[in-house]
Amino acid sequence: MKKVGVLMGSASDLELVEPALDLLAQLAIPTEVHIYSAHRTPAEAMAFAQNAEANGFAVLVAAAGKAAHLAGALAAETVLPVIGVPLKSSALEGLDALLSTVQMPRGMPVATVAIDGAYNAALLAAQILAVEDAGLREKLKELRREMAAAVLAQDKELQQKRGQ
Amino acid sequence: MKKVGVLMGSASDLELVEPALDLLAQLAIPTEVHIYSAHRTPAEAMAFAQNAEANGFAVLVAAAGKAAHLAGALAAETVLPVIGVPLKSSALEGLDALLSTVQMPRGMPVATVAIDGAYNAALLAAQILAVEDAGLREKLKELRREMAAAVLAQDKELQQKRGQ
Amino acid sequence: MKKVGVLMGSASDLELVEPALDLLAQLAIPTEVHIYSAHRTPAEAMAFAQNAEANGFAVLVAAAGKAAHLAGALAAETVLPVIGVPLKSSALEGLDALLSTVQMPRGMPVATVAIDGAYNAALLAAQILAVEDAGLREKLKELRREMAAAVLAQDKELQQKRGQ
Amino acid sequence: MKKVGVLMGSASDLELVEPALDLLAQLAIPTEVHIYSAHRTPAEAMAFAQNAEANGFAVLVAAAGKAAHLAGALAAETVLPVIGVPLKSSALEGLDALLSTVQMPRGMPVATVAIDGAYNAALLAAQILAVEDAGLREKLKELRREMAAAVLAQDKELQQKRGQ
Amino acid sequence: MKKVGVLMGSASDLELVEPALDLLAQLAIPTEVHIYSAHRTPAEAMAFAQNAEANGFAVLVAAAGKAAHLAGALAAETVLPVIGVPLKSSALEGLDALLSTVQMPRGMPVATVAIDGAYNAALLAAQILAVEDAGLREKLKELRREMAAAVLAQDKELQQKRGQ
Amino acid sequence: MKKVGVLMGSASDLELVEPALDLLAQLAIPTEVHIYSAHRTPAEAMAFAQNAEANGFAVLVAAAGKAAHLAGALAAETVLPVIGVPLKSSALEGLDALLSTVQMPRGMPVATVAIDGAYNAALLAAQILAVEDAGLREKLKELRREMAAAVLAQDKELQQKRGQ
Amino acid sequence: MKKVGVLMGSASDLELVEPALDLLAQLAIPTEVHIYSAHRTPAEAMAFAQNAEANGFAVLVAAAGKAAHLAGALAAETVLPVIGVPLKSSALEGLDALLSTVQMPRGMPVATVAIDGAYNAALLAAQILAVEDAGLREKLKELRREMAAAVLAQDKELQQKRGQ
Amino acid sequence: MKKVGVLMGSASDLELVEPALDLLAQLAIPTEVHIYSAHRTPAEAMAFAQNAEANGFAVLVAAAGKAAHLAGALAAETVLPVIGVPLKSSALEGLDALLSTVQMPRGMPVATVAIDGAYNAALLAAQILAVEDAGLREKLKELRREMAAAVLAQDKELQQKRGQ
Repeated sequence: MKKVGVLMGSASDLELVEPALDLLAQLAIPTEVHIYSAHRTPAEAMAFAQNAEANGFAVLVAAAGKAAHLAGALAAETVLPVIGVPLKSSALEGLDALLSTVQMPRGMPVATVAIDGAYNAALLAAQILAVEDAGLREKLKELRREMAAAVLAQDKELQQKRGQ
Repeated sequence: MKKVGVLMGSASDLELVEPALDLLAQLAIPTEVHIYSAHRTPAEAMAFAQNAEANGFAVLVAAAGKAAHLAGALAAETVLPVIGVPLKSSALEGLDALLSTVQMPRGMPVATVAIDGAYNAALLAAQILAVEDAGLREKLKELRREMAAAVLAQDKELQQKRGQ
Repeated sequence: MKKVGVLMGSASDLELVEPALDLLAQLAIPTEVHIYSAHRTPAEAMAFAQNAEANGFAVLVAAAGKAAHLAGALAAETVLPVIGVPLKSSALEGLDALLSTVQMPRGMPVATVAIDGAYNAALLAAQILAVEDAGLREKLKELRREMAAAVLAQDKELQQKRGQ
Repeated sequence: MKKVGVLMGSASDLELVEPALDLLAQLAIPTEVHIYSAHRTPAEAMAFAQNAEANGFAVLVAAAGKAAHLAGALAAETVLPVIGVPLKSSALEGLDALLSTVQMPRGMPVATVAIDGAYNAALLAAQILAVEDAGLREKLKELRREMAAAVLAQDKELQQKRGQ
Repeated sequence: MKKVGVLMGSASDLELVEPALDLLAQLAIPTEVHIYSAHRTPAEAMAFAQNAEANGFAVLVAAAGKAAHLAGALAAETVLPVIGVPLKSSALEGLDALLSTVQMPRGMPVATVAIDGAYNAALLAAQILAVEDAGLREKLKELRREMAAAVLAQDKELQQKRGQ
Repeated sequence: MKKVGVLMGSASDLELVEPALDLLAQLAIPTEVHIYSAHRTPAEAMAFAQNAEANGFAVLVAAAGKAAHLAGALAAETVLPVIGVPLKSSALEGLDALLSTVQMPRGMPVATVAIDGAYNAALLAAQILAVEDAGLREKLKELRREMAAAVLAQDKELQQKRGQ
Repeated sequence: MKKVGVLMGSASDLELVEPALDLLAQLAIPTEVHIYSAHRTPAEAMAFAQNAEANGFAVLVAAAGKAAHLAGALAAETVLPVIGVPLKSSALEGLDALLSTVQMPRGMPVATVAIDGAYNAALLAAQILAVEDAGLREKLKELRREMAAAVLAQDKELQQKRGQ
Repeated sequence: MKKVGVLMGSASDLELVEPALDLLAQLAIPTEVHIYSAHRTPAEAMAFAQNAEANGFAVLVAAAGKAAHLAGALAAETVLPVIGVPLKSSALEGLDALLSTVQMPRGMPVATVAIDGAYNAALLAAQILAVEDAGLREKLKELRREMAAAVLAQDKELQQKRGQ
């Protein structure tokens, strides 16, 4: 299977990115993670994106906060789909990162997920891989069934507690 | 090739969605377009998403304004990737549609592009299809080269005009 | 008396919804509570709304955060009044949920209350039931008198403390 | 049938309120319209709300812009449901009116609809009246069917045009 | 000297209002404080404003959060200057209260100060009283001198610490 | 009677300020108008404020857009009340000017009115002058009566048109 | 004299950038202008920044809209000061470009000016060059004097018109 | 070497400003720090700016919160570059300070950095000084290399931990 590349700008982002790594591992999707910054190590970030296709990647995920340029910088260097995760930083509640990630110019899309939505970024990456992988699609459907079952179990417990 | 499904909530959105349809046609990607509303025709929208995989779709694109639920409603019914295009409506500059589209809960990602970014949604759909289609990837790279060439031609013209 | 249906997307929302349940109990309004998610259990949410009228409900209350679609999804399936409670989540101070709930398209209103305003949603549901129920109207007026009396008691205490 | 009261703060708001009046007329719901301002004619606005129940009103609709206090001022004087329509004024895209209308304190709900959403306010008023009026409920369902049919007709026309 | 009236909607606002009361006391300005809510006790709030001029008040200060209508409601009932203090509540960082207070319609100004700016509201009230009271003006100038001296003392201490 | 000083930063603001000048003229309040910029002519602006009290001014009104510092700069140089009018400029809908005007630090209030609210600023200035001027207070009450009458005349016309 | 480099992402930005070019020409500051996009021609943009110091540039100015990455991308490749001009695009009033430009991470500043503030960006570039150029400083002071004189001439004209 | 002047409005801002002072010390750039408020000590702030050029300053840095006028007030009195640091205060997440600092009028730029970005302000000041100082430029390049090395070391550690 092709790989998912997960990039973040700083080791301090790792905690917010962990849910993505956990889901990719759970789905047995080969994943490579890097700490590359669009601003502090632009050459490494750019090279990673330029070589991503040749190196067997299918999708890239980039998490960044504030003026979050990482996803856009990767998107400029590859035609692989790039998923952006805006991270909430100390000010402005993540609105800065959201707008910096999603408002990309014509010709350079970034598939943006919710603020601090690393788990969903990994899930979206899996959905993209699953377009041509029926086995993975089945795993994703199973995840959906589990999510639904968890909600309905919560509902059932509530019904019992309330004696409805 | 699998198909891209493009949905919008109202015929009045068609003008904003046209750039997506044009690009998909230019890339020879089979496309099916529907006017289905998450609120006015939920059954049709839901059925479309539930059957999308079986009907040969690879990716869905949904464009909607205001409390833009269409992309999220489709995402709830399929494990295919769903791309959301927030449309700018008469108030709030499209911020309402952006937040309604991108801030999806854990487990249900929508790949959100810029406000009124239908062209980029189509491009992202093509990038997803191209993950397993080298010919399409080559077309996308050609598009990139054309974009770059257009910018550099603008630059050259400016240099000549300024005599730099 | 017809019933009020209170829905939320996750058991974690229950704490914010409790004030609504308490008020409905205090007013002796028959209430049924469910944990149904617009995205994780869309079929159950939709079925609940479709059958709500037949099942003796008069009003539905839906609480959700982020891209809060639950109220709108219910509103699309019933002509009963649907009240939406936007919940504040970890980012954006609840603005995302507010806009996702209130900015509904023409033809599909959601009666939206303040962010985290579950108590007021229950009160609004009671006001709607009271339109044709003089006894309940009287209870609501009594609540108003108590609120006013509480404010005036606070004022009196303040006057005494300040010796005005 | 009980009446719907529609209030606005200025004759200049009448154009934005017309869609509400048209819908109420179409549904044959008795309606009384007034231009009363929360700030310029508070006594009249207040008296209207205080007497609304006795005067045969079931629901009040209030449309106002900027620091939109009208709906809240009415809500403070009656236990009838009050629906607020935030109007977009020359600055801030209607965000001021939305927040002034929806963020009501505990104990005083205003059922808020979208910015410039007078049509939906009338529809919500009708839904409230319909809770105890099966004939009106049927009319509302017919409206829904017409809306759905209009969308599907648009879709069909699009299919034909595209030869899908 | 004429009095300043300070109103707030709830006893829970008292802590935020205290700095205003302290300053008015320090300036020996006769002050009357009330807990009156625009929504829970509109009659008392309105009566207070209607009688304020006759009762010897010169200026009113009103502090409120969320859909902060108190200042505007008072302003509608008196031609005395009304100063509004938007209070920060649990969501939206006080932006709701600010817009609800400041965006008053033509003909009904509220003199709005910063979010949680009760101290400044009291100071503004004093400045208004001082327009015709040279003694109070002198006290205000003395306050200014003290503020400046405090800043310059901080600066001097910093210079010494840094050995500049 | 003491004078009102009206300042704006540029001749291009004059059109937005005219309603203030017209009202002050209508109320026969002596007014002096200046174009002084906080940034382009800080010395003149500052000197005007420093001498305002000695020159017979009672209140200052300052209108400015974008990073609107004029009102705050005047407030720093006088203990007279300073009223700020945030002007809507080409971007951000006037939010920048509003926050720059209203969010003044402790000890330096600016009495802020609505965006583009020059008329209300003049009215507030008149209310401040009227604190010690019963004749002016009476004129302001007459204005209020006219405003109310205008609303009620609109209402009456509407009643007749609708045959209510 | 060292040069100022002015970059923009598209020829369509040229109109908004012209005031910068005019000012730099007026000040006789050698200027080189390029149309390079951070996303469409990242290699050219990056190379320009990497070679800017060697090529005799002192300051770079970058104008971009939406997810405005150009200034940040240049800043990552040079230690020369980089000035960012956020451009207002069709949605969100330029807030997206402002936040994308100004909220740079620790270690990579962009000197951000107002939305659509190309003139001020050129002026700031000139101020930076003038730090070590007394002649240019004198020109800038002359500009200031002219601005002040223009304001005072406007004021004088107003005084005469009003007969103050 | 010419000096950098760092100003803040209150001793309570010192903690947020410390990273700037530390960096300037690390780079051996002569620095003078003052606590001067645009509103409480306008004369001192203004005099500092007016004399800054004569006193050997090359760049000024001003940090302020809320209606942050300090940077703009300094910019009005000198043609030296002025860098503004918007500080996050208790409400509105620093958006007020950001807009008050960056949205300066034509002719008066403030080089604005991120909210709470004092470190970057100092770095930008150093970059400005380095335009004519090759030794300082080299120090800044060394800082860049250290930043990049730190990121790559974090990346290497992550690779080892994951066994990639």
